[in-house]
Amino acid sequence: MPNKTPLIGIDWGTSNCRGYLLSATGNVLDHVSDPRGIAAIENNQFPLVLEDICGNWLAAYPNSPLLLSGMIGSRQGWIEAPYCPCPCALETIHQHAVALPSDRLTGYVVPGLIASGLSGAPDVMRGEETQIAGLAALQPGLTGTVCLPGSHSKWVSLRNNRIEGFSTFLTGELFGALCDHTLLGRLITNDPCSPHAFSRGLEQSTAAGGLLHQLFSARTRGLAGDLGGGDIASYLSGILIGSEIRAVAEQDYLEDTVHLIGGNDAAHRYHEALQSVGAKVTLWPGQEVTVAGLWLLGRQLGLCDDHPNG
Amino acid sequence: MPNKTPLIGIDWGTSNCRGYLLSATGNVLDHVSDPRGIAAIENNQFPLVLEDICGNWLAAYPNSPLLLSGMIGSRQGWIEAPYCPCPCALETIHQHAVALPSDRLTGYVVPGLIASGLSGAPDVMRGEETQIAGLAALQPGLTGTVCLPGSHSKWVSLRNNRIEGFSTFLTGELFGALCDHTLLGRLITNDPCSPHAFSRGLEQSTAAGGLLHQLFSARTRGLAGDLGGGDIASYLSGILIGSEIRAVAEQDYLEDTVHLIGGNDAAHRYHEALQSVGAKVTLWPGQEVTVAGLWLLGRQLGLCDDHPNG
Repeated sequence: MPNKTPLIGIDWGTSNCRGYLLSATGNVLDHVSDPRGIAAIENNQFPLVLEDICGNWLAAYPNSPLLLSGMIGSRQGWIEAPYCPCPCALETIHQHAVALPSDRLTGYVVPGLIASGLSGAPDVMRGEETQIAGLAALQPGLTGTVCLPGSHSKWVSLRNNRIEGFSTFLTGELFGALCDHTLLGRLITNDPCSPHAFSRGLEQSTAAGGLLHQLFSARTRGLAGDLGGGDIASYLSGILIGSEIRAVAEQDYLEDTVHLIGGNDAAHRYHEALQSVGAKVTLWPGQEVTVAGLWLLGRQLGLCDDHPNG
Repeated sequence: MPNKTPLIGIDWGTSNCRGYLLSATGNVLDHVSDPRGIAAIENNQFPLVLEDICGNWLAAYPNSPLLLSGMIGSRQGWIEAPYCPCPCALETIHQHAVALPSDRLTGYVVPGLIASGLSGAPDVMRGEETQIAGLAALQPGLTGTVCLPGSHSKWVSLRNNRIEGFSTFLTGELFGALCDHTLLGRLITNDPCSPHAFSRGLEQSTAAGGLLHQLFSARTRGLAGDLGGGDIASYLSGILIGSEIRAVAEQDYLEDTVHLIGGNDAAHRYHEALQSVGAKVTLWPGQEVTVAGLWLLGRQLGLCDDHPNG
């Protein structure tokens, strides 16, 4: 039991909520995962849900401050924390945190970032900035490309403790829509997946005709008996991740070391895909960088100071 | 009332069924559209549904032969008519038609075609071969690229009355999955669509970062107030169709005249997209080429001969 008030760090995204009870030195004293992402919460009942998720911690440490990161700071969340523009120095992010609008809970919401993506259109992130702050806390002065796989995967250029810019790819969400809501997805069966299905998809992503044509081969290779029902999902994933990696490779994103943030099912696939194009990859544990980021930002906000335990 | 037995031509796809009562000279005497595509039909009840859809015609002309084209000839249809390989001479397609397995109904199912697509994987069509046969019947000796927009749009190389090859793009189905089952789709509102939303999407398809990145701009431009909820669908359509057309342009598909088969909502968008890249386009009415193809193939099969009217 620590003799200082711990920090409650919350990574609250669209489809789930992860909480960490952090000691004054940044150790994880307890953690919780809850399926109530912000999309599941009605009538703006964020504080009630939060008190429910963190109820035991708040009972034990009533004065604990909270630091919330992710989509909770979006327009669809509890309170909007406006985007900070890129390039953005990591040590300035906390200055744009927004205080929680609550009498009972004290703390802040971390802002997201906005940049101009590869296509020239605006691009945004919420939550990933906290992971990148954590990455830079774990390895000060780290430079290179950070890849954060997910529904909306992000490729981030990090240099001199500054996020220079980033670009988002719809890869994960499009994969889900293809598998669940198209003819290709209806070909998927529970049969065992061949170990080469993913790499065959990667190879298909380098063929002529572009992504929209390449994807249709999942159907025709299935018809021809060349791809089993158990292979289709991995094959499609290979085409999509391969397409994303080709696009970033064309923009010199892979010339630096790629710092790949793990922690979800897709990360090992990105790892394989990056290795297949000869990229130099360092894999980081996702939860560890999230916790490091929440704790660093909390300390910068004065939330991890030596308060007497109420 | 014709004094010859008419031909009943059926274009039976996955999601709907269109029937045409054709005179011995190929005129449309009557037509019907029914939502019972082959995906809606259970327990192999194709002949019962067909007798229901064409009931009036069969009552008036009990001896009418039928010619069925489209997914009805697939493994999921009534009876499988195996794919003919490309290159495929148009005058040989009818030789691979398969007789209907019925005591009460007489006629054939048109085979589909198989080719090696741009990506090198197999590619298939069912129904489009009938439209292309019709196109060549309407304009003998026609040469060039045929574009058939749809859920799975097709680009076909036609030369010397031969289908040299073709490639399929998942564009239409992916558009539907994006609009109905992703975060981007949830941004769509019923507000009026700006006249430039589609062309802005076409322009976005030429930007850096590839399709998976380009698509995410629908979200960020929406957040930035730069794209209204009523614009999102057209904008996404522009990115997807633009991506498809860039891919075929890289393969010299656009050097010949593009014969664009109309008849669905997407065709005018393809027309605009093709014109935006300077392609020479001839637009053909979709129903007319379908009818011409069914009648031509029916005549080649001896179904449009002078039978006395039963």
